[in-house]
Amino acid sequence: MKPINISEKFGKFSEQWSPRQIAQVDNMQVILARLQGEFVWHKHDKEDELFQVVEGTLYMQFRDRTEVVNAGEIIVVPKGVEHNPTTKDGEEVLVLLFEKLSTAHTGNVVHERTKSEYPKI
Amino acid sequence: MKPINISEKFGKFSEQWSPRQIAQVDNMQVILARLQGEFVWHKHDKEDELFQVVEGTLYMQFRDRTEVVNAGEIIVVPKGVEHNPTTKDGEEVLVLLFEKLSTAHTGNVVHERTKSEYPKI
Repeated sequence: MKPINISEKFGKFSEQWSPRQIAQVDNMQVILARLQGEFVWHKHDKEDELFQVVEGTLYMQFRDRTEVVNAGEIIVVPKGVEHNPTTKDGEEVLVLLFEKLSTAHTGNVVHERTKSEYPKI
Repeated sequence: MKPINISEKFGKFSEQWSPRQIAQVDNMQVILARLQGEFVWHKHDKEDELFQVVEGTLYMQFRDRTEVVNAGEIIVVPKGVEHNPTTKDGEEVLVLLFEKLSTAHTGNVVHERTKSEYPKI
């Protein structure tokens, strides 16, 4: 029950595409991630996933379009929808995610970037 | 699957202690609220509640202490814990909450401020 400072938590890690867990709310978790470049196409069959952009501009690719999500904006990717988070021009983008504890960040895809769990910071 | 701009959503309402729903993630909801002064002591027996301060300084009173939560910070109030969100010096504080769809904002207490559901904006 202590305040959690988001910027301070981002200062604790520099690895990209490697989420850290900063809080739990019931069966959900709050995670932080540093993104740069393109991730991997995937979907989550059973879980929605919320992205809140903290710094930079996120280009959320869907199969039929790309949504531009700026700092201070949120986008919810519903379960079952293929998506690929991407950044442009070499920008590192900082995002906060809300999702179930059970959500694997690469969803249905096993990839070299897949992490089985997120370290708590 | 469209970006949701948090500031823009706050611009759509001015009532205090009257949350608005801006997104759903599985069985959870993202709500925005404008707080000024003192709310009411309450607890949520079955749900954790996350507060993210967007603007201003929130004083989260617990029975044994008060936590100061600044903009850019998060605090999670675990289920069963009595709390009373408060602001000081007449400041209006903008918060984003993440909680179950079933969470009543006044928890176990029925109060003149109790809302049975939150309008979607």
